[in-house]
Amino acid sequence: MTRCIPQIILALAILTPYSSLHSQTKKEFNGYDLVDETGNIRKPADYRDLYQFLGTYTPTGSNGDTEMHVTYASPGAAQYYRQNGKFADGTVLVKETFTTDHAQMTTGDARWATNKTIVWFVMIKDTKNRFPNNPLWGNGWGWALFKADAPDKQVATSFKKNCLGCHVPAQSTDWLYVQGYPVLKSK
Amino acid sequence: MTRCIPQIILALAILTPYSSLHSQTKKEFNGYDLVDETGNIRKPADYRDLYQFLGTYTPTGSNGDTEMHVTYASPGAAQYYRQNGKFADGTVLVKETFTTDHAQMTTGDARWATNKTIVWFVMIKDTKNRFPNNPLWGNGWGWALFKADAPDKQVATSFKKNCLGCHVPAQSTDWLYVQGYPVLKSK
Repeated sequence: MTRCIPQIILALAILTPYSSLHSQTKKEFNGYDLVDETGNIRKPADYRDLYQFLGTYTPTGSNGDTEMHVTYASPGAAQYYRQNGKFADGTVLVKETFTTDHAQMTTGDARWATNKTIVWFVMIKDTKNRFPNNPLWGNGWGWALFKADAPDKQVATSFKKNCLGCHVPAQSTDWLYVQGYPVLKSK
Repeated sequence: MTRCIPQIILALAILTPYSSLHSQTKKEFNGYDLVDETGNIRKPADYRDLYQFLGTYTPTGSNGDTEMHVTYASPGAAQYYRQNGKFADGTVLVKETFTTDHAQMTTGDARWATNKTIVWFVMIKDTKNRFPNNPLWGNGWGWALFKADAPDKQVATSFKKNCLGCHVPAQSTDWLYVQGYPVLKSK
């Protein structure tokens, strides 16, 4: 066996590109890669290309404007939810809100998202209460907010002050409006 | 060297799960895996989990009902489009149409997709005019339609009769309503 070690190393070296690509792919989707040691959350760079779509809400605000709110989840999130009835620790959710346009189309008067993002909300599932002294972590999630004028700058200071108000009605479903996410029921 | 072959085979066997997973992942996204030799198109099984989201339209029809139309593309489709200004040969698009609910929510009166799919439209990019005698192929695409009462049964008979009417206004953008797909502009 010992005299074969060089040959085995060669065989392993040939296959290394495959295994490291696989590892990179897995590594890309660890939500805690987006979190520093004190709990600061970065917005994931490639969620539009790599995350999976959960659903769209189209709220019309008191000013009459209709936005489109699109929620993406880190890869594999929905499959885990369907199997376990909850999100896995480390799951990342991104809600991107857009201004909309509308027009009479062949299907009727239809509305769609423009290229103009308003804000991004990011949540990271935390089943371990990792940052009890950070006001952006609590109720089983890390919470973050980014605005279009500075897309990489997290601007929320307290999840209770800046985030929770809109989520209270969804407390029984882990603070999320899951009724608009069909993929959590069936693939 | 020869006496080392059993050891090398062992080393390769240990790594096989990594390389075959990688191959499967790549193989899964060849659009022509969904097409038989005469051009019949199957609906992809896992588009909700594995495809990427392009955009949502919310048309209100003449009966007053608002649907939600969600378009997914096979992985990598948007990145290629951003780089080349067109979809790659073999790209698969799935448009899933849903009934909707709406309610007064914290963000305003908001609408969302229910779990009830109405139909699925599937298109496969074809730059090679592969099936000139099949009436479901033409104008650079394969076209297919599946309805909720028989989700795996392709029911269109002619893309010109069953599909093109709704796509004519989008002829200049390769028959697609790309203005509602922000990810084609930027990731």
